Formats: sequence, C-alpha cells, structure tokens
Amino acid sequence: MRPQLHSSALRLFTPIEADLLAVEERIERVTDIEPPILRDALRHVMLAPGKRIRPALTIACGRLFRDATASLHSMAAAVEYLHTATLIHDDVVDQPSLRRGAPALYSLVGNSVALLAGDYLFAQAAATASETNNLRIMRLFAESVMTLCAGQIDECARIGDERQEIDRDSYYRTIDAKTAALFVLACHAGAILGEASLAQTEALRRYGRLLGLAFQIVDDVLDLVGDESAMGKPVGSDLRQGLVTLPVIYLRDEIAEDLLRQAFSDDGAKEQAIEQIADRARESNAVRRAYAEARHLCDEAAAELEALPKGSHRELLWELTRTVIDRPS
Amino acid sequence: MRPQLHSSALRLFTPIEADLLAVEERIERVTDIEPPILRDALRHVMLAPGKRIRPALTIACGRLFRDATASLHSMAAAVEYLHTATLIHDDVVDQPSLRRGAPALYSLVGNSVALLAGDYLFAQAAATASETNNLRIMRLFAESVMTLCAGQIDECARIGDERQEIDRDSYYRTIDAKTAALFVLACHAGAILGEASLAQTEALRRYGRLLGLAFQIVDDVLDLVGDESAMGKPVGSDLRQGLVTLPVIYLRDEIAEDLLRQAFSDDGAKEQAIEQIADRARESNAVRRAYAEARHLCDEAAAELEALPKGSHRELLWELTRTVIDRPS
Repeated sequence: MRPQLHSSALRLFTPIEADLLAVEERIERVTDIEPPILRDALRHVMLAPGKRIRPALTIACGRLFRDATASLHSMAAAVEYLHTATLIHDDVVDQPSLRRGAPALYSLVGNSVALLAGDYLFAQAAATASETNNLRIMRLFAESVMTLCAGQIDECARIGDERQEIDRDSYYRTIDAKTAALFVLACHAGAILGEASLAQTEALRRYGRLLGLAFQIVDDVLDLVGDESAMGKPVGSDLRQGLVTLPVIYLRDEIAEDLLRQAFSDDGAKEQAIEQIADRARESNAVRRAYAEARHLCDEAAAELEALPKGSHRELLWELTRTVIDRPS
Repeated sequence: MRPQLHSSALRLFTPIEADLLAVEERIERVTDIEPPILRDALRHVMLAPGKRIRPALTIACGRLFRDATASLHSMAAAVEYLHTATLIHDDVVDQPSLRRGAPALYSLVGNSVALLAGDYLFAQAAATASETNNLRIMRLFAESVMTLCAGQIDECARIGDERQEIDRDSYYRTIDAKTAALFVLACHAGAILGEASLAQTEALRRYGRLLGLAFQIVDDVLDLVGDESAMGKPVGSDLRQGLVTLPVIYLRDEIAEDLLRQAFSDDGAKEQAIEQIADRARESNAVRRAYAEARHLCDEAAAELEALPKGSHRELLWELTRTVIDRPS
C-alpha cells in the first residue's frame, strides 16, 4: 500500500507533499521492529493522524535554499519522532485519557512500557538525526532535548505550588522551553541543511520560536474554550492538572479567587468549578487578549520571512502563521 | 574542593585515576543547572557513590592505543550519564525503595520529575558524546540506546507473563540488550577514539559484551543470595518484581513449582516464599552453575585482550574480568 498523508495534514503543505509522503514512509518503516509490544506501541503513536507541522517546517526551511532531499527527510522524521517521544512521556506524567482522539499510549500498555517506548523513540530520533552526517545538527538536537526537558520539569514543579502565582513572564519562560524549542529545532535544522547564511538561519530560528509560542498559546486557549470533538480530548485538561496558562492568568482578573482554588482542589467541587471557569472564559476578555497576543506573535513571525528567498516554500511558512491562529483544534 | 574518587571506585583504576578525577569534575559541573529541582535530582543521582566501571572502560580502551584525553573524558562522562539515566527510568518502572544504598530518585521527587530528569540526562549524554566531534560515536551512541530500551521493554513485557517460561536463551537475549550493550558502547567508543584497528575494535567489542554479560549474571546471583548491607538493597528484588534470572532458571530444577508461583503472587505467602527460595539458593547447585558460567564468560573476555597492546591499561582491563566475579556487591 502506498503511504498517504493523514487527512489531518494541512492543505497548505501541497508544495512539499512528495517530501511529507517520503517522511511518512520512513516513519512506517521504523515501526517495523521487535519485540511485538514495542512495534504495536510505536505504530499506535506514530501512525495516529498528526498534522506533521514540525517535519513540514524542517522541509520548508531547508527547501527555501536548496535541494538537500535525503538529509531533510531524515531530519524531518527525527523531529517527528522526538515530538512523539515527548508526547508519550508527557502523557505518562499527566495521565490524560486521550491523545489525538485515541487512547493515550500509557493507558494501553501501562506506564512502564510507555516510558521505555518513549526512550526508544528519543534514541530513534537521535539515530535518524545522525543520518544527516552533520555534527552541528547532532549538537543542536541534544541541546534542544535538554531545553525541552528542563521546560517540562519547570512546569511539573509548579503544579505542586498551590499558590499558583505564576505570571505572564514565567508562563512564557515555560512555553519557550517546552514548546517553542522544538519549533526552533525544526526550523534551525532545516536552515543548516539548506546551508542558509547566518542571518537567514537566525531569522528562521526567530520565526520558529514566535510560531511555537503562538501555537502553544492557541493550544492553551482551545484547551479552555475549544470544541471537545475537534480536539479529541475534554475541555479544561490544563485546569484539571493544576496548570495555569495564559488565558487563565488573564481570567484571574475577572473571576473570584475561590473558583480557581476549587478547580485545583481534589474535592467534589472540582469539575463544577472547571466548567464554570470555562463558561466564564468563553465570554471573557481574557480569551480575546490571549488570542490577540498569539496573533501578534504570528505577525512578528511572518515579518521574519521577508528577508528570505521568495517562492512556494516561503509562502507555505507564511500561511502557517495564519493557520496556527485559525485552527479548530 | 577538589573532586575525589568515591571510595567505591575500584582500586585497580589507579593507572587512570587522573582521568577519572577529570570525569568526576565534569560530572559535578553538569549538575550545576536550573531549575533547582532538576539540579537537586541530578546531584542526588550523579554524585552518589558509583563504581564508574563504564567510564573506566572507555578510558582504558582508548588509552590502549593513544592519548585522546579530551574526547575520552567527554565520552566517559557521556557513558556514565547514559547509565544513570537508565537507572533512573528503571527505578520508575520497578519502584525499588533503594538505589546504591540511598533512596531511589522517584521516591524523593515523584515519578514525573524522575522521568523527566532521566530524559534530561539522556539528552545530556548525547550532548556530551557530541563533544567528541565524531559521527561514528554519535551513531553508535543512538543505536546503543535503542538496543538498551528494546531490552528493557522485552524484560518488562515478560514480567506480565505468569507462566514465566523464560529459558536460558531468552535470559541471555535480554541481558545482552539491557546490560551488555552499554559495556559494548563504552569499549567500542574508547576504541574509536583510540583509533584502534578494525580487528582490535572488534576484540574490544567482544570483551565488553562478555564482561557485561558476566557482570549481569553476578548481579542476578547477588540479588538472590548477596549481602543486603553490601548491596544497599534487600535480597530477592528480582523475584519480588516477578523477574526470572539465570540462577532461578537453574533453581527451578531443584524447587517445587508452587514455591516460585507463590513468590510471584501478590498474596501473603509472597515474602515467605522469596525467603525460602533465597535460602534454598544459598545451598543449591544453581548458584554455583550461574557463577561458573560468569567465570567462563570472564575467561573468554580476558582471552580477547591477548591481541591488544600490552601495558597498564590492558592489565586494568584484565583485572576487571577478575573483579567482576569476586565483587561483594
């Protein structure tokens, strides 16, 4: 059977469709391994419908400058393995029931096998990145993973903090590390393989960071007020976990302090409080403020593209700055 | 304060003491990071007394051939980070109370932070390995991690299997992947950095594998009949976890089937059964058979050294084949 792009892949990826199909083929190949329990686990997580935004970034950033097909495909696959590995471990940590509309891996194979399958996929990502035969890429890769992990730990450490005094600055610090770092890696690696100039590489790093920040803010807004069926997970997961995100930081000015404390409690009032907060958020200024901030970041990201070579790949990167804001899930 | 070698470091490492001290210094440096919870976690696991056998292997294997000090120190540290990362994740999976005589990390910081700290250390290992500026090393590193993880998953998958029909072959397959692969990595990386010939590299790979297998068998024997205070953990941990090791495979011929089933059960008879099995093991042929097998593997490992350059480093590697058998814990 010829591999296909998932219907969830974005329509704007048409200029790099052949590349993404080749990456999809590679992804299918690496899931064909022993022991069977690992194969089934990897197939469950890697072949689930994903938007493949990060591999698309690597390919588009590289193709802005030159045709480095083989290396770009390796790196694009590596970025997606890495992303998936972090999702597997995040789910072991956060214990949500669903991921991309399907049962989270840990709930099928247990925490232990999920943890080890995540480790395997981290290593698979490193092995695949090494196919680029590029030491700068390998260093960048390892350092990005360190940043990602430190960001997750930072977030994790805060969950225990009942005061939840997190402000806008520390929110940004966390999402810079836990989300934007992977977007930066995807773009930077593409730029290296495309042999971009230093200034172009820096522009793409800034683009990736701004896009990643906006992406996470929209994600956090949708978690609060999104459409459950489109997201494939229940509304309010972050609150349920005790996580304060940007819309909630702004919402704190508009709701009673007690309501937030109830949402973070473990008593019977928890679910009701989460529902009330989500209802309030829908008609609040907080969500509008957070969206405006994401839109502003996307505008800044788009501006970074101006100095880069024109063409369908730049167009694609530009379109992504619009799609991130308007996505339904 | 000048760093010191832990008293648990083996006396036979004297010829490479300066190297190991430099590695120790590096290890201390990487634990100096933000956020504090990650720093404390890494200090707890990295500065605990360890024998540092794997970094010693890398250094001794490299120094057999030439003086590649900086790269050898990077790689030796990387191997120890990797080893420690696997221990952290193993403990999240197995939930033992102690590790090297101290509380296991997860029991201090929770499973989530321990999982993420392990991820961070995996990435730190990859970043440190990349300082060798050697792509062969990077590939070897990533592939070794994949082998390690697949081995752990294999073992993990078997724990659920109540029949426990594991035989000698599948036991060897598992320890080859979960333990010997890291010894092979340590030796092979040293050989690469020492610019050993292909034949010499292959000999050191075989040496590392045989030593690693013997090391694990002795570990498994000690888990069953060792001295609790010397090991820093209670006897019978493997049985308690439902793990069948080589001495138990041999012991199955000498004890009633029911006793083993009781040890793997979750009822009140469990602890008593484990104690009975450990008592039987002490006076059994099974432990002698397992030891003899480990000794044979060590003899084979020692034989691999004959074709390598003579001197204090070869002597050290030879001594290790004796120490692995005679260690008290």
